[in-house]
Amino acid sequence: MSDTNTADEEGIRPGEIAMDLPEEFDAGVYFIGRIRTPWASRKECPHRGEIDGPVCTIEVDPRWQAALEGIEGRERLLVLYWMGLARRDIVLQRPRRKDRLAGAFALRSPVRPNPIAAAVVRLEAVEGRFLKVRGLDCVDGTALVDIKPEFSPAERKCDEAEGP
Amino acid sequence: MSDTNTADEEGIRPGEIAMDLPEEFDAGVYFIGRIRTPWASRKECPHRGEIDGPVCTIEVDPRWQAALEGIEGRERLLVLYWMGLARRDIVLQRPRRKDRLAGAFALRSPVRPNPIAAAVVRLEAVEGRFLKVRGLDCVDGTALVDIKPEFSPAERKCDEAEGP
Repeated sequence: MSDTNTADEEGIRPGEIAMDLPEEFDAGVYFIGRIRTPWASRKECPHRGEIDGPVCTIEVDPRWQAALEGIEGRERLLVLYWMGLARRDIVLQRPRRKDRLAGAFALRSPVRPNPIAAAVVRLEAVEGRFLKVRGLDCVDGTALVDIKPEFSPAERKCDEAEGP
Repeated sequence: MSDTNTADEEGIRPGEIAMDLPEEFDAGVYFIGRIRTPWASRKECPHRGEIDGPVCTIEVDPRWQAALEGIEGRERLLVLYWMGLARRDIVLQRPRRKDRLAGAFALRSPVRPNPIAAAVVRLEAVEGRFLKVRGLDCVDGTALVDIKPEFSPAERKCDEAEGP
């Protein structure tokens, strides 16, 4: 990594642009559970999750357990989670290992106005309110925001015709 | 549609279960723009967006325009948006046109603890802070939450090797 890609103490790299954030939020998010992974810090996390990566555990809070009804048998899920460690104001960024600036919306970086990550995972098992999945890339303890079934185009047609 | 699938005035159908929501939110979301679609009400919206559906316009607020740098040339994007008209407390649901109950996390329903929708769209054009895309399914004026590049597995390898 070159010097120009080293962030300063505030986490800004040369050429990056930080915006003033709005004074108020427009909506609120509930954390609905936690994600358990083998990675204790951001440094240890893979650059991006792999569908055949290690098994991680999604722990859904007891309050929301009924919302898992019918999830067993789904092959792939879209998981949304909250990357709460990241700055939200850096719109133009210098990605690590890259030599040019790019906007937050052109990157999968955790640094973005709303630090919501999205990962497609493979569902391996459902044990009560715990889901065993492969394909995540986040720090152990990351807050869970949503779980949705993920369909391939062929599955979508099928689901519209007959599935729940 | 049968009577048992007709929601009452509160929007609850027979057999559905509503939870008490937590007293406080855990995190806040900024609306970063608006989505313009041909559909003025939820009734008019397609059941799910099609990648070759009508062209819609994503309007990014001027504050965040710099975050679009480098998005041109991306073929597919993942768009997150806020389904603010939906209830957030119905964990067990009776989907329209289905005869059994299913949990919110086993459905793509807008009714969920965090009403964040995710759609993969095809990027047709970038005109300043306006993106022309196909693949959305939401009401005109829907609040925008995030835009990310979406990669196929092959593209992912390519991006890790050389992309921005």
